[in-house]
Amino acid sequence: MHFKDVLPLQSGASIRAYDLSYETYGVLNADKSNAVLICHALNASHHVAGVYLDESGQVKAKSEGWWDTMIGPGKPVDTNRFFVIGVNNLGSCFGSTGPMQINPDTQEVYGADFPVVTVEDWVDAQARLLDALGIHTLAAVMGGSLGGMQALAWTLQHPDRVRHAVVVASAPNLNAENIAFNEVARRAITTDPDFHGGHFYRYGVLPKRGLRIARMIGHITYLSDDVMNEKFGRLQVAPTLVASRTTLPPEGAHFPLGRPGGETLAPTPTVTSSPFKYSTQDVEFQIESYLRYQGDKFSEYFDANTYLLITRALDYFDPASAYGGNLSLALSKAKAKFLLVSFSTDWRFSPKRSREIVKALLDNQRDVSYAEIDAPHGHDAFLLEDARYLGVVRSYFNSKVGV
Amino acid sequence: MHFKDVLPLQSGASIRAYDLSYETYGVLNADKSNAVLICHALNASHHVAGVYLDESGQVKAKSEGWWDTMIGPGKPVDTNRFFVIGVNNLGSCFGSTGPMQINPDTQEVYGADFPVVTVEDWVDAQARLLDALGIHTLAAVMGGSLGGMQALAWTLQHPDRVRHAVVVASAPNLNAENIAFNEVARRAITTDPDFHGGHFYRYGVLPKRGLRIARMIGHITYLSDDVMNEKFGRLQVAPTLVASRTTLPPEGAHFPLGRPGGETLAPTPTVTSSPFKYSTQDVEFQIESYLRYQGDKFSEYFDANTYLLITRALDYFDPASAYGGNLSLALSKAKAKFLLVSFSTDWRFSPKRSREIVKALLDNQRDVSYAEIDAPHGHDAFLLEDARYLGVVRSYFNSKVGV
Repeated sequence: MHFKDVLPLQSGASIRAYDLSYETYGVLNADKSNAVLICHALNASHHVAGVYLDESGQVKAKSEGWWDTMIGPGKPVDTNRFFVIGVNNLGSCFGSTGPMQINPDTQEVYGADFPVVTVEDWVDAQARLLDALGIHTLAAVMGGSLGGMQALAWTLQHPDRVRHAVVVASAPNLNAENIAFNEVARRAITTDPDFHGGHFYRYGVLPKRGLRIARMIGHITYLSDDVMNEKFGRLQVAPTLVASRTTLPPEGAHFPLGRPGGETLAPTPTVTSSPFKYSTQDVEFQIESYLRYQGDKFSEYFDANTYLLITRALDYFDPASAYGGNLSLALSKAKAKFLLVSFSTDWRFSPKRSREIVKALLDNQRDVSYAEIDAPHGHDAFLLEDARYLGVVRSYFNSKVGV
Repeated sequence: MHFKDVLPLQSGASIRAYDLSYETYGVLNADKSNAVLICHALNASHHVAGVYLDESGQVKAKSEGWWDTMIGPGKPVDTNRFFVIGVNNLGSCFGSTGPMQINPDTQEVYGADFPVVTVEDWVDAQARLLDALGIHTLAAVMGGSLGGMQALAWTLQHPDRVRHAVVVASAPNLNAENIAFNEVARRAITTDPDFHGGHFYRYGVLPKRGLRIARMIGHITYLSDDVMNEKFGRLQVAPTLVASRTTLPPEGAHFPLGRPGGETLAPTPTVTSSPFKYSTQDVEFQIESYLRYQGDKFSEYFDANTYLLITRALDYFDPASAYGGNLSLALSKAKAKFLLVSFSTDWRFSPKRSREIVKALLDNQRDVSYAEIDAPHGHDAFLLEDARYLGVVRSYFNSKVGV
């Protein structure tokens, strides 16, 4: 969808003549009351559910929507009942206008000149998309992690346009540790000599070193300590096959969301104990191999400026800040009913942070359901198949969300 | 101390004509029964206690020993009673032979050719130092974190030479998450274009970008989430003064151990809420400023190859591996009495890991004292002043460690 009108941004800057990529699933009903908006997290896209077919009608490799476990016919968010909209945010590198595209004011690639966008800006842009689709009120807005922040922001910026908000594995703001991890990732990117102040496109290079490091840090923080020990522990890689690991298997279409829990590892055999190579630079442990592989893959398809923009949007989000830090006061504007879900081993967006939102909503006598799922997978759990988690969302949509 | 004899290493390689830097405190008694060996962690040195004076007899800035809270006259490890030896490990950049020095076989700087050294190798080298000092049996061997691993290894490699082992904030091996953080740090260093495969000395450059990232990651993991929120939270930096932050204050002698909890911040005023700059590359939050400052400082004095070597020594340490993972079996060789200390908020070397060692020692009917200190500072707590922690160590040395 192309938008001609200027969109004013929170920073004071603005953007004009932009596109938003979106995908829909199911059918909008006659009174347009069954729309569910899905907001994406760090490195996902509008491709929320289903699969893409290639020219010959075959399912493309790794083309599955990033929340396909959650959304589809007969699934927890049932597209036989709901009209689901996946939208790619401004600043992304997966279709909507972002740093890799042409700035209409200069006719050059935006690069580092792409304006800084916030969660609130994304919500404003999403609201314009709904306007264009003729949808006034959402049956629900839903997202995990950074997507959950957008769902929460929807209830504050457009309280009369949201009946339900489903906020999964999210937080009312980032804490210092989260900002710290974002900052290290950003520094890895911006100090990569191939970054060129964000104008690397002009030089025909990509700051892949930085992106690799950023992604490796991300992966560590998305997984729980327990699941990492269970999956990798101190398993070594088989010495004779290590060299092959640096050559990645050919990839099909890019995979807009790297799902560490869901993805298969490069097929390097593991051994529980073998002679070490005693090297500081070769791979010894399976966890190293996994991280290198994920970092390499990510650096092939993700845009560095987008990474900076999206981590900054995470850092800035803090609805309580305008209320002297009082979250209850900040959330008093919300009129929606809420479902919050958190995961016991998520240390990036811990249950404690979800409970802060629950408490602030209850302080305002809002209708809130809250589920804390005992799951081993850390922050990543919100993307994975877990019967209790999916069951909670299914029940909520079945019993509470009318159309 | 210079050593002419070849030291065989665990890897199968060896090193010859090496030096070990060491410092001693107190007086060795007549029967040489009061020696306490202190083993250092990642980026510390033999300068364990006291201060250095400059030519005019003034105390040098930041020249305080890294465990000066613990060791000295009247302190928990009382140098009026004990002869304390601080030794710098092989591979370090603070005096003992390491990658920055000349390889006698080639007459060139070692660089990446410095052999990979392990915890066990360090212990062997330390034992030779004790031989040279005429000390057969240690009253105690003591260390925190990686230093604790060395203390534990002493009890296994030289069970008859250690009467007590004090193992603080340590673990019987690294778990997958710890290896993962080490690997990201190493990749940041080795993919820095100024690394040149570890032979950067020849090119007159230093891989400072990589070292900065490595150090930033380290700092995040040394602190607890709680203390980071308490110290930094979402505090912003004052917009007008940000530029000054990139200019570091002049440093005196290098500070061999960066102590995040103990160091003062660069004096940038903080504000609780101010207009954001809406920038992906400028500093907005105090935690970003702190990490950049620590990273910059570290990159000025620490050797990149040493960082690789020391993190690898951490990765490799795993005394149970030769016993099919059975730690109780592995520790059956130890004859020393033990004090173990852990800290409640240490998520890098959690209390659970210390308890594994305690259990394995108890399985062998060893004499073990264990203290789990409720401290807010994360892994860093082992370097900080904490009355309960210091009290436990004081009591142990006073009541149990005879001379």
